[in-house]
Amino acid sequence: MVNVPVSPLAPDAFPDMPPIPGVRTSSCEAGVRYAGRLDLMLACFAPGTTVGGVMTKSQTAGAPVIWNRLALTAGAARGLIVNSGNANVFTGRRGTEAVKKTVHAVATALECRKEEVFVCSTGTIGEYLLEERVVSKVDKLSSTLSNAKWQEAAHAIMTTDTFAKGATLTADINGTEVTINGIAKGSGMIAPDMATMLGYIFTDANIEAAAIQAIIAEAAEKSFNCISVDGDTSTSDTLLMFATGQADHAIVTNHEDARLDDFRRALLELCVNLAHQIVCDGEGATKFIEIRVYGAENNDAARAIGLSIGNSPLVKTAVAGADANWGRIVMAIGKAGELADRDKLAITIGGIAVACNGEMTAGYDETLVTKHMKKSEILIEVDVAVGPGSATIWTCDLTHGYIDINADYRT
Amino acid sequence: MVNVPVSPLAPDAFPDMPPIPGVRTSSCEAGVRYAGRLDLMLACFAPGTTVGGVMTKSQTAGAPVIWNRLALTAGAARGLIVNSGNANVFTGRRGTEAVKKTVHAVATALECRKEEVFVCSTGTIGEYLLEERVVSKVDKLSSTLSNAKWQEAAHAIMTTDTFAKGATLTADINGTEVTINGIAKGSGMIAPDMATMLGYIFTDANIEAAAIQAIIAEAAEKSFNCISVDGDTSTSDTLLMFATGQADHAIVTNHEDARLDDFRRALLELCVNLAHQIVCDGEGATKFIEIRVYGAENNDAARAIGLSIGNSPLVKTAVAGADANWGRIVMAIGKAGELADRDKLAITIGGIAVACNGEMTAGYDETLVTKHMKKSEILIEVDVAVGPGSATIWTCDLTHGYIDINADYRT
Repeated sequence: MVNVPVSPLAPDAFPDMPPIPGVRTSSCEAGVRYAGRLDLMLACFAPGTTVGGVMTKSQTAGAPVIWNRLALTAGAARGLIVNSGNANVFTGRRGTEAVKKTVHAVATALECRKEEVFVCSTGTIGEYLLEERVVSKVDKLSSTLSNAKWQEAAHAIMTTDTFAKGATLTADINGTEVTINGIAKGSGMIAPDMATMLGYIFTDANIEAAAIQAIIAEAAEKSFNCISVDGDTSTSDTLLMFATGQADHAIVTNHEDARLDDFRRALLELCVNLAHQIVCDGEGATKFIEIRVYGAENNDAARAIGLSIGNSPLVKTAVAGADANWGRIVMAIGKAGELADRDKLAITIGGIAVACNGEMTAGYDETLVTKHMKKSEILIEVDVAVGPGSATIWTCDLTHGYIDINADYRT
Repeated sequence: MVNVPVSPLAPDAFPDMPPIPGVRTSSCEAGVRYAGRLDLMLACFAPGTTVGGVMTKSQTAGAPVIWNRLALTAGAARGLIVNSGNANVFTGRRGTEAVKKTVHAVATALECRKEEVFVCSTGTIGEYLLEERVVSKVDKLSSTLSNAKWQEAAHAIMTTDTFAKGATLTADINGTEVTINGIAKGSGMIAPDMATMLGYIFTDANIEAAAIQAIIAEAAEKSFNCISVDGDTSTSDTLLMFATGQADHAIVTNHEDARLDDFRRALLELCVNLAHQIVCDGEGATKFIEIRVYGAENNDAARAIGLSIGNSPLVKTAVAGADANWGRIVMAIGKAGELADRDKLAITIGGIAVACNGEMTAGYDETLVTKHMKKSEILIEVDVAVGPGSATIWTCDLTHGYIDINADYRT
C-alpha cells in the first residue's frame, strides 16, 4: 500500500463543531481490516429523530445500501453504524446476514426497532465482512457515547482519505437558530478497493421525514452529485441526514415551507463545503477545478456537459500539466451528447476569454491563461449558447499520484 | 513534446500490402505543423469508385467532417486528402474556407467533381489550418501517384502514433478474389491536441455505394466502435471505405446479398485488426485488454457494460499494476446503468473463475489470476445473467506513460 501524504489541497484544520442536541457518537478500533486504527463509528439519536437520504444508483450496490433503502421508507432513526476497511459488497447471502446481525446488535443495544438502524460499510469489495468484529464492539460503543467527538467519527469512516472531513453551520428556522453538522469521507468518486463517498448530516431541526428526504435530495443534487474524481461510481455511496427535532421551533412538515428557506440555503452550503473537501482529497489531486456551464438546453444538460469536461482524462491531465489546452475542452463539450452551438461556443479560463463564436478569441494571449493554470484553483467557464440551463461541477486534476495510488496498491 | 518510444505492443512489421486496382496514393512533407515529416497524403480513385463511411458523433465536429458527411450522400469518390498536424476544428468560417479551397484544388488536379473529394485533418484543435501549405502541394502529389506506397500513406496520417498501421486481406465474391487494404491512425480514442482515429479501407470489389455504406457501418460497430483508450471522443474521427469496382465480378447492389458474406467477414476481420493496432498504440499502453460481456439484456447493453469496464480508470490502473482487483470490475458493471443480476453475476480473468452467483468463487486462488495479470494480453469475461446480449471490447491499461504524454505535452 502506498503511503500517501496529506493532500496539498487539505484545509488547515478540522473545524470546531458544536454538539447537536439529540446526537451522540463513539468510535473505536475494531480491526475490520487493519489493526491500530479507528474503523468503527456508532451514532445514537434521540427518539423522534427523522431521517432522509440518497444512495448509489449502482446495479451492484452492497447489502448495507439495500438495507438502508428499505429502512429509509419508515423515516425514523435511532442508530447509525459505519465501518471502514470492508465494503460488504458482492458478498452474497453472507453479506446480507452480516447486515442483519449488525442491525440486531445495534437495535438491542439502543433499545430501538431494527428499521431505525442504518448501516454503512466502506472498503474492500468481494471479501466477506467478519461481522463479529463489528458486532462484538457494539456494547462498548453504546456505553461510551458522547456528544462532541466529531473529528474522531470523521476519522473512523476514512479509508484512503488523507484528512478527516467535517463542516458546521447554523441556520434560522422561524426565529430559532438550529445547527447543522456534517462529516464525510471519499477520495475518489470511488476507489472500490479502499474508498467510497459517505456523508452524514446531523441537525437539531424539527422537520418531518418526508421533508428531510426532499431537502437532502435537493442539496445532494447540487453538491455531491456535482463532483467527480475519476468518473467511477461506488457500490456504497451513501448520504444520510438525521434531524433530532430538539430545537425549539414548531415542526415543519412541508419541504417547500418558507420557514425552511434559510435552512435549505445553509444545508446546501454545508454539502458543497463537504463535497469540495472530497474533491480536494481526490487521489493524487494537486489542483481543484471548478467548471461552470451556461447556455445549455436545461440544467441537466448543463451538468452532463460539465461532468463530460470534469471526467475527461485529457482535460484533467492538461490541468495537471498547467497546459492551456482548451481544444480538449471543446472535445469534451462535443462528446457530452448534449446540444451545443458549435459556432457560438464560448470558453473562458480563469476569467480570460479563450474562445468565442466557435473559434479562438481575437488577440488571445496564452501566457495569461498559462499563469492561471499554474494556480491550485482553476476556473473553467463554457457557454454552449443554446438555452437557459446552467450547472457548476467540481473536480481535480489527473496526476502521476493517481496512478501510484491505484496501479501500485496491493502490489 | 515527450519523445515516445514505439509501443511495446506494436506488431513486428508493417504488412506487405498489394496494390488495389484503381487506387493510387502519394505522400509528402507539407510542413503543416512540423518540418521534416510526412504529413500530407493524397489518394486517387478510378472513375466509378463508390464510398461509404461513418464519422464522429461529436457536437463540435470539425469542418472536414461536416464536408465529408455531405459528400457521402452522393456515394462517389475520386480523391481523398489527409493532413496531420492540424485538425481544422473550432476554426469558424476560416476552417470551412480551408476545406473549400482544398477540395477545389484536389478536384481541379484530379479533374473530378467537388463532391467526389474527401478531406480529413488531424492534429491540434482551435488553430487555423494554413491551407496554402496543403493546397500548394496538391499538384506535386497528383503527379507522383503510385499504387504501392501504403506504408508511406499510413505514416503521413500519423500524429502521436508510435507505429504505422496497415492490414490486408482477400475475400471471395461469387468466385472472384478481391483485395481489401486498410490503413489507420490513432493512439487514443482521441488526444485532440495531436491525435484522433482515422481509418481508410480500399478494395477493388464492385459494390454499390448504398451497400458499401451499410457494410462499413456494420463492420465499424463491431470493431472501431468497440475500442477505447481513454473514453474521450474525437472531433475528427473518420472511417471511409472506397470500392473501385475493378474486380471481375458482377456488381452487388444489396448489402445483404449472400455473395457478400465472405467479403463482410473479411472486412470485419480487417477492421478488428486495425482497431487492435490502435489500442496497442494507446498512449502509454503496456497491456492489451479484451473484455467479453455475456448475458446482457441485448447487444447494445453488453457493449455499454464492456465500455464501462474498459473506460474505468480504476480497472485500467489495476491492470497496469497486475493487480487482480476484480472488485473494480464489479463496480464498473454496476455503474454502467444497464440491467445486471447482482446475485448471479460471474467474472473470469484469464479463464479463471473469480466470482460466480454474486460472490467470490469458492476456493478462489488469487495467485493464478495474478500470474495472468502479468501477461501483456489480459482477458476479462463477465456474465451479467439477465439476457442473451453479448459484446467484445478492447482497451489498454492506464499508466504513468499516459500522464507523461498528456500532462507534460507542450510544457
